[in-house]
Amino acid sequence: MSGTLGDLGEFGLIGALTERVPVGPHVPLGPGDDAAVVAAPDGRVVATTDLLVEGRHFRRDWSTAYDVGRKAAAQNLADVAAMGARPTALLIGLVGPAELPVAWALELYDGLRDECAVVDAGVAGGDVVRGSAIMISITALGDLEGRPPVTRSGARPGDVVAVAGWLGWSAAGLAILSHGHRNPRAFVEAHRRPEPPYAAGPAAAKLGATAMLDVSDGLISDLGHLARASGVRVELSGELFDIPAQMRDVGRALGADPLQWVLTGGEDHALVATFPAGTPLTARWRVVGRVTEGRGVTVDGEEWSGTGGWDHFG
Amino acid sequence: MSGTLGDLGEFGLIGALTERVPVGPHVPLGPGDDAAVVAAPDGRVVATTDLLVEGRHFRRDWSTAYDVGRKAAAQNLADVAAMGARPTALLIGLVGPAELPVAWALELYDGLRDECAVVDAGVAGGDVVRGSAIMISITALGDLEGRPPVTRSGARPGDVVAVAGWLGWSAAGLAILSHGHRNPRAFVEAHRRPEPPYAAGPAAAKLGATAMLDVSDGLISDLGHLARASGVRVELSGELFDIPAQMRDVGRALGADPLQWVLTGGEDHALVATFPAGTPLTARWRVVGRVTEGRGVTVDGEEWSGTGGWDHFG
Repeated sequence: MSGTLGDLGEFGLIGALTERVPVGPHVPLGPGDDAAVVAAPDGRVVATTDLLVEGRHFRRDWSTAYDVGRKAAAQNLADVAAMGARPTALLIGLVGPAELPVAWALELYDGLRDECAVVDAGVAGGDVVRGSAIMISITALGDLEGRPPVTRSGARPGDVVAVAGWLGWSAAGLAILSHGHRNPRAFVEAHRRPEPPYAAGPAAAKLGATAMLDVSDGLISDLGHLARASGVRVELSGELFDIPAQMRDVGRALGADPLQWVLTGGEDHALVATFPAGTPLTARWRVVGRVTEGRGVTVDGEEWSGTGGWDHFG
Repeated sequence: MSGTLGDLGEFGLIGALTERVPVGPHVPLGPGDDAAVVAAPDGRVVATTDLLVEGRHFRRDWSTAYDVGRKAAAQNLADVAAMGARPTALLIGLVGPAELPVAWALELYDGLRDECAVVDAGVAGGDVVRGSAIMISITALGDLEGRPPVTRSGARPGDVVAVAGWLGWSAAGLAILSHGHRNPRAFVEAHRRPEPPYAAGPAAAKLGATAMLDVSDGLISDLGHLARASGVRVELSGELFDIPAQMRDVGRALGADPLQWVLTGGEDHALVATFPAGTPLTARWRVVGRVTEGRGVTVDGEEWSGTGGWDHFG
């Protein structure tokens, strides 16, 4: 479909977009009415909303519309998984200038569709309006399947801290792009299109995770939220992190510390959770530290200072 | 609280905003985690999302932040009510420039809070980011209480068409403001702050409404959606509309036809529904027409042409 949002109009575009994206198996009533109806068999629904603004959260010269769609869906679906819930549906809002090519919006929705397909979710509804800049709002819904939500506040001294998914890959990819390079592709791809370990979220809840969140701002920063909410200290061990040889190579080439990417890089949407010691964790979980009495987050015994950045580390 | 969004930062602002707005009785887990948990006792959740863009949907010189908040909440809560559901919670996204006064955002949330209070709903979560223009995304959730959703597609020949709430008040208010006036205040207030008849939505479902929607684009335009989705014709009778004397006065003063405001004005968020003939309607419902075989919407037998505007009318 050629033309711009201005040519097609908002009603025309929303029709073309919703046709493009299946509602999935959890949406008994999809777009086209005043509201959609989404299954919530648990009797509670997990809900989260995020905004993505061009220039802040993505750049059209660095990411295709398809990648922006995948990433936008991924970060919200990961938030649902981080509660221990199974994602069911997204609602999408798109603000775009009149000169935005319709093809860009269609590709964005292709990305949303394909990321939703990974977790068997669908797009239940949305809105499109014209505005001066591109902005995407995403609301994700999910089902707890009878389990309590896994919040940030349940970590207890003695728990182990474990990570599922990738850490530092998106940050390495961003560093590569920022230096004007396009390779190694694995990191650039990870920056453009994170692969959150969705299934690990409900699995962690079943394993008895005491606290969980998705790593969106950086492991240490996000664990700081968990430590604060739980009233505990999180002690990480640098040696427990597995830094791939290729990431070390990129660090050397760019004069950067790859452990910094792993500990402070956001956007990979790994899941980090705490479990009672002795929990038989599956292979997708890597133990990287433990929970103790106290406050804050340490790495190899050194405290991370918070807002001021790395005081004693890196 | 003084200062701007740039002074306070996004994290600071989201904290100040969420403190300001109660989560309400339907939100067992509110803001502060990766996602909120909202009660969905029916086992399905009604969900709808809308975007409001400054300059398109509101003007800061015509409406206070408080009024924008009330209106933004109202239009989404009305969408939930139009499905026959009871609203439970909102999720809010706010994009604003760095120079946006924090006070503006706080007042916006006061408006959201007060409109939510009308229906005993709360704000379950949200996101705040900086961007070049003010944009608000709202997702509203609701509960069907065991009833089937009332869609747009169930109207049948022989049904009556009935309206609950106000029609034409917002359009009259907009006309007054557009002419540089501020009075009569009742219409200007109705434009700034619609009062949807929320309770009439679930009540209509209980009465056996066959189809329903909220009037957001204008009665004839919205009934066009209903007629198309149901495969029927909607025949309205102009004499059945009760046009207040004060609205007639404003029409005369501005050289406008008040029936045009009533039939084509949006944003009052009245509810329009179809019921089997003989349904004992309560006083809040006013019958304004009937459903017949055919297609389209007529007023006193004349067809409304759709996009071209009034061909045979007004």
